[in-house]
Amino acid sequence: MKLATLKDGSRDGTLVVVSKDLTKCITASDIAPTLQAAIDEWKDKAPKLQALSDQLNAGNVAQAEDFDQTNCMAPLPRSYQWADGSAYVNHVELVRKARGAELPDSFWTDPLMYQGGSDDFIGARDDIALASDEWGVDFEAEIAVITDDVPMSSTPEDCKDHIKLLMLVNDCSLRGLIPGELAKGFGFFQSKPTSAFSPVCVTPDELGDAWDGEKLSLPLLSTLNGETFGKPEAGVDMTFTFPKLVSHICKTRNVGAGTVIGSGTVSNKMNGGPGKPVAEGGVGYSCIAEIRMIETIEDGAPKTPFMKFGDTIKIEMLDKSGQSIFGTIDQSVVKN
Amino acid sequence: MKLATLKDGSRDGTLVVVSKDLTKCITASDIAPTLQAAIDEWKDKAPKLQALSDQLNAGNVAQAEDFDQTNCMAPLPRSYQWADGSAYVNHVELVRKARGAELPDSFWTDPLMYQGGSDDFIGARDDIALASDEWGVDFEAEIAVITDDVPMSSTPEDCKDHIKLLMLVNDCSLRGLIPGELAKGFGFFQSKPTSAFSPVCVTPDELGDAWDGEKLSLPLLSTLNGETFGKPEAGVDMTFTFPKLVSHICKTRNVGAGTVIGSGTVSNKMNGGPGKPVAEGGVGYSCIAEIRMIETIEDGAPKTPFMKFGDTIKIEMLDKSGQSIFGTIDQSVVKN
Repeated sequence: MKLATLKDGSRDGTLVVVSKDLTKCITASDIAPTLQAAIDEWKDKAPKLQALSDQLNAGNVAQAEDFDQTNCMAPLPRSYQWADGSAYVNHVELVRKARGAELPDSFWTDPLMYQGGSDDFIGARDDIALASDEWGVDFEAEIAVITDDVPMSSTPEDCKDHIKLLMLVNDCSLRGLIPGELAKGFGFFQSKPTSAFSPVCVTPDELGDAWDGEKLSLPLLSTLNGETFGKPEAGVDMTFTFPKLVSHICKTRNVGAGTVIGSGTVSNKMNGGPGKPVAEGGVGYSCIAEIRMIETIEDGAPKTPFMKFGDTIKIEMLDKSGQSIFGTIDQSVVKN
Repeated sequence: MKLATLKDGSRDGTLVVVSKDLTKCITASDIAPTLQAAIDEWKDKAPKLQALSDQLNAGNVAQAEDFDQTNCMAPLPRSYQWADGSAYVNHVELVRKARGAELPDSFWTDPLMYQGGSDDFIGARDDIALASDEWGVDFEAEIAVITDDVPMSSTPEDCKDHIKLLMLVNDCSLRGLIPGELAKGFGFFQSKPTSAFSPVCVTPDELGDAWDGEKLSLPLLSTLNGETFGKPEAGVDMTFTFPKLVSHICKTRNVGAGTVIGSGTVSNKMNGGPGKPVAEGGVGYSCIAEIRMIETIEDGAPKTPFMKFGDTIKIEMLDKSGQSIFGTIDQSVVKN
């Protein structure tokens, strides 16, 4: 099934079930007022939501309304945890290479993750509102999962069953603020403004063969200012699977229901190399920093600019028949 | 007023108003079912909670029950944001000195903060449950504030009014996991198990002269295995005030209601030096790492051990008349 949270003026919005083709929706308030309430009691709520979804997709719901992607909050408008991985180690290797730093061997075996802010997620069509566009505004196209409760010390195998929903995320970064902040040693803060999520999140069964319980094997499409910027295969070059990322964060603590875990920027190598822009026959990139790194490595300096006020970024994923799975993230950078 | 969240088997517990002397409480469910619901609409809810508190303290509430600190969850059992500062830069300087690293000058002007996990906070008397006690288990005694909504770009002056509640926190650390994790560059994850909070949180007016809108000027008492381990003055050597910490985290994003912000480990210098143990006439320390650093600096190696299964840590703060303000954090380290 597909779920979304509609704007209704409240902090947590209204939970709706959305049709597979993203054209219709029906409120699920009678089952659970919010997605957090649903994931808090997923075993009880999921079958009820699924039954409503089945009716909706069969055309048997008289009260169904048109689904409006522009009226969506993030599926979880605020969450108790946002943990973002760097599962595509190729991306990390490139970042380091561009600044002349070695990649430690452990980065291929021990997931790199950061704890992010989750108190004010924004919707798929909400603006990236910032006080300045001089901070190196970059998008980062990723896949994210939502878990139910995961007990401390769960193994990756244990964690598979705790992945209940998937969605897309634009984990926006302020590249200009990152070096100074990371040099302080405690991770990101000001360099990570809020993240935007796809209009809908979906249960794993909606993905068919593309989801094997560990990875989502479809291209992730990023369109920057109307031009295709990236279409890497999310199932390729993912060094750490989602169950491994979940297991990483529950090593020393219990993980609460509604935890959102990101894959990190999706990134493909090409013939063992760093990949190529779409215009040159490659699959391109899921963030601007990556093409700038390659430009730096090749030409000594980056030439693709970061985003400025007025620039737009669109992120989506199509199934094999060309149908949008999660709806479209489509944001503009604007002055706050 | 003083507020607490009682265990009732649910994820978010029951909000109660607690008497000033911590002996009586009354459910506030009719006003707000949870503390998050109260802080979400603080302008409306605070006066109603205050009226109930006034009645309780006047002895005019027939349904008042005995307040049981052992039955408390964290005031916010789960929160949408936990941001912990290192406001006592003396603590940071000592950590660095012990490992032979310089403290950058910017650390005195730019707050060091980390984003922590907030999906599974624990109560004041809950165990520190871990799979191993070989990870360098340490307590960290701190003060924390809870804010309402803070708009992006708010100045420290603007932020003063957004501090609605204060409490104590044991921001437990696994010291053995920190160096490897920080070396990866993205901050803490596995090295920070869940944090425990004092039984009650209080509005600033409960603190009288001890709260000046920026700092809390009273000693923070830590008792390790029954011995006084620390009693530093929280109002002294706090380089970054709470409004500055709040302003730091809202530079590039809006901060949601119910955000919890920690002071970092409370730490005093002594005559410009690194302080002394309580047994030697000093104010001692709010974590074990600090005394180990001083032992390392003075003797070449630490001698005070980290916590093992069975060890206990008690954290509290008394007002000038000797009355406990927040109740007592009192935890044992146990095998999970």
